[in-house]
Amino acid sequence: MEPLEPGKKLEKLWEELSSQINTDDPQQIVAFLDKITPADTALAVSRLNPEEQTRLLTLLNPEDAADVIADISDTQGADLIEELQPGHAAAILEELDSDHIVDILGELDEADASAIIDQMTPVEAEKARQFLTYAPDSAGGLMISEYLDFQSNQTVQDVLEELQNNREKYAEYDVQYLYVTDDNNHLQGVLRLRDLLFPKRTTKLASLMISNPFRVNANDSLLQLHNFFEEHNLFGVPVVNDDSRLLGIVLPEAVAEEKHNRSTDQFLGFSGIIGGEEFRSMPLLARSGRRLSWLSLNVVLNILAASVIAFYQDTLAAVIALAVFLPMVSDMSGCSGNQAVAVSMRELSLGLVRPTELLRVLAKEASLGVLNGLALGILLGAIAYVWKGNAFLGLVVGGALAVNTIVAVSLGGLIPLLLKRAKLDPALVSSPLLTTVTDMCGFFFVLSFASLVLEKL
Amino acid sequence: MEPLEPGKKLEKLWEELSSQINTDDPQQIVAFLDKITPADTALAVSRLNPEEQTRLLTLLNPEDAADVIADISDTQGADLIEELQPGHAAAILEELDSDHIVDILGELDEADASAIIDQMTPVEAEKARQFLTYAPDSAGGLMISEYLDFQSNQTVQDVLEELQNNREKYAEYDVQYLYVTDDNNHLQGVLRLRDLLFPKRTTKLASLMISNPFRVNANDSLLQLHNFFEEHNLFGVPVVNDDSRLLGIVLPEAVAEEKHNRSTDQFLGFSGIIGGEEFRSMPLLARSGRRLSWLSLNVVLNILAASVIAFYQDTLAAVIALAVFLPMVSDMSGCSGNQAVAVSMRELSLGLVRPTELLRVLAKEASLGVLNGLALGILLGAIAYVWKGNAFLGLVVGGALAVNTIVAVSLGGLIPLLLKRAKLDPALVSSPLLTTVTDMCGFFFVLSFASLVLEKL
Repeated sequence: MEPLEPGKKLEKLWEELSSQINTDDPQQIVAFLDKITPADTALAVSRLNPEEQTRLLTLLNPEDAADVIADISDTQGADLIEELQPGHAAAILEELDSDHIVDILGELDEADASAIIDQMTPVEAEKARQFLTYAPDSAGGLMISEYLDFQSNQTVQDVLEELQNNREKYAEYDVQYLYVTDDNNHLQGVLRLRDLLFPKRTTKLASLMISNPFRVNANDSLLQLHNFFEEHNLFGVPVVNDDSRLLGIVLPEAVAEEKHNRSTDQFLGFSGIIGGEEFRSMPLLARSGRRLSWLSLNVVLNILAASVIAFYQDTLAAVIALAVFLPMVSDMSGCSGNQAVAVSMRELSLGLVRPTELLRVLAKEASLGVLNGLALGILLGAIAYVWKGNAFLGLVVGGALAVNTIVAVSLGGLIPLLLKRAKLDPALVSSPLLTTVTDMCGFFFVLSFASLVLEKL
Repeated sequence: MEPLEPGKKLEKLWEELSSQINTDDPQQIVAFLDKITPADTALAVSRLNPEEQTRLLTLLNPEDAADVIADISDTQGADLIEELQPGHAAAILEELDSDHIVDILGELDEADASAIIDQMTPVEAEKARQFLTYAPDSAGGLMISEYLDFQSNQTVQDVLEELQNNREKYAEYDVQYLYVTDDNNHLQGVLRLRDLLFPKRTTKLASLMISNPFRVNANDSLLQLHNFFEEHNLFGVPVVNDDSRLLGIVLPEAVAEEKHNRSTDQFLGFSGIIGGEEFRSMPLLARSGRRLSWLSLNVVLNILAASVIAFYQDTLAAVIALAVFLPMVSDMSGCSGNQAVAVSMRELSLGLVRPTELLRVLAKEASLGVLNGLALGILLGAIAYVWKGNAFLGLVVGGALAVNTIVAVSLGGLIPLLLKRAKLDPALVSSPLLTTVTDMCGFFFVLSFASLVLEKL
């Protein structure tokens, strides 16, 4: 592989693309894009200003424009597609794989998506509408409609002729198998392409195919698909509806890619980036607004937590040293709790714990909470004692941290399971929910323990 | 696909495995494991107690034991392997793909790994030692040594005979290509397996092969491999050293899997789970100790931050209402900063920003910081003003949050780039580093602004 030299000719790259867009010569642009890697295309396109991006997609013919869309992330692709006339957008999207079409349409407003679908050819529009009814991480959402299917009474000759006559169309198909269906599109069997090489040309597919092949249901989950490909080393699996009608195929790469996307979303959600991905090439106001929408929820939660301090103001005024320990207790329990959240989310995604196993998780986390709570409580208590020479201060602070650590890890372990059962996204909600509760409890334990022994502090 | 029915017969599953282990009948155990999915195997094995797990691997023959290891995560696999006699561990590992062997050896202590390698056959041991010299996310770390290579002067007949004679060995090879090398193992060309079907048996490979095929260097990074497979729709790529000697092949699945693992590590590290994955089936003390090691670093950072409050105790004692706002200002800026961290880490991993582009990130984040800082500052300032009816309190609190938000998002955006340049892991270090600084600065801004207008508060 040629060394990709990241960063070396960075500025030139998008400046060159930008200047080529201004020459209005699509052939030159395509020649340039063909020369650089998909990653460099993504980088260069992301650094263009919005007018140049729209101009780029308008200048290119739909096929070349689709190649650009395929190189960049779905979020960025959707942003670009949104700016085009629906007819033009439809022409570009039709050049993509069907799961990719749906991924991009799924990122758009319903009205925008619908306007684009209306401009597609009736067959493609029908398919897009059908595909959009499936959850994006189900077999139906991950399948592509670019597969080969034939009827069981067709012959090897029929297949070879069809492949020959539509060579160009099939050349782009990323499939190794050929599916056999009956008149009503019920899945009957499967053949490997190479199985066509040896038999007589007049052989019927019915006698060559493997009957009753492996299949997944359109509603099967990502975890089920992942398990399927772990168990069966195949290059693809047919997707059927409840009536065993063939709808599409899922490739193992699509499953791996979606798993990767899920972890990314998890990470971004956990860090407070919601409503899709953010790139710094997006307009400032859009980035600011989306980040603020999550932060303003946080203000409310923070007020809830801080109101505990307001309630105990007199205690705090009497022993101002406590103010130093309030954020320490709440921060440290928050960290302990987030560790438990991460372990639960990981075990959930690997299928190593079921959302119903609350007692198991509680037992595992509470016992760990006692251990770590004691260790951290003794440490912080000792620090407080050494600093102020007051054993009661040490007891209050250390005791509060110990108790709050038990609360935090127990809750942290349970919250993802509870959210999963409530069909909420654990990545998004776990951390702010946990932090609010551990802050409130942390402040409460420190200040209420202190008010019990106020005259000794 | 048969419905997997998650959770339904959960308890029975591992209880049954456990009772079968106690019958000491390996054939019955294998029959049971063959019946359940890999995911259920992983779940059932993870719920056994350590003695049962070791017993399971000891009862099974190496090949069946290797199948179990392949179904569970590398971390868990390494934990199990560690408990076995090195000779037995070596026999099991030799049944795995070479990249998997290295993944598991890489999770062990160097001494343990070395003891196991010493028990391998000389050829496998040599290979393992060589493979371990490559970074786990480089082409060398992801490659497998299970590929077909022949000399350019061999004929089609030679290849077909070799394949025929070693049918069993090659049946497990997950490859579509055949590589052609010269006497010194220099990569010369590549052939698709199906290219062997049509030519005369006496044809030399040299005249059939595609010369100078695509290749990657053993030190190429995960991002480079990802870009390679994005650009070239291939089922594998040969890996060579600096002398163009063929070392192994990388499959696209391995790249997708490693990308997924990286995002998972990122997420776990970000949440304070370090030193490898944690599962609740691990011993309590090990889990507690590993979590504490990260938390104790956090204690030190928290003391640093809290010392700012200690320094300003008098100001705080004079205006106790400030205590309510201290955690709010530090929490909210921490959240804003973490959003910027997440965006930087995402852009880094997609190659959309280079670690050297500090000024670009600073400009993008600082401008967003001004916007969001103003919005949040005005909001919190208004809340403070309404609560206490003191405009100066509102100014102090709102001003501190505004300024600290600008600091937090700018730093949050830059930290991952700086850590990357310093070859530290951004996922692990970004968040605690950022939180400490934003806590310190938050406390400092609130209390120092307050001390400036103390008589008005």
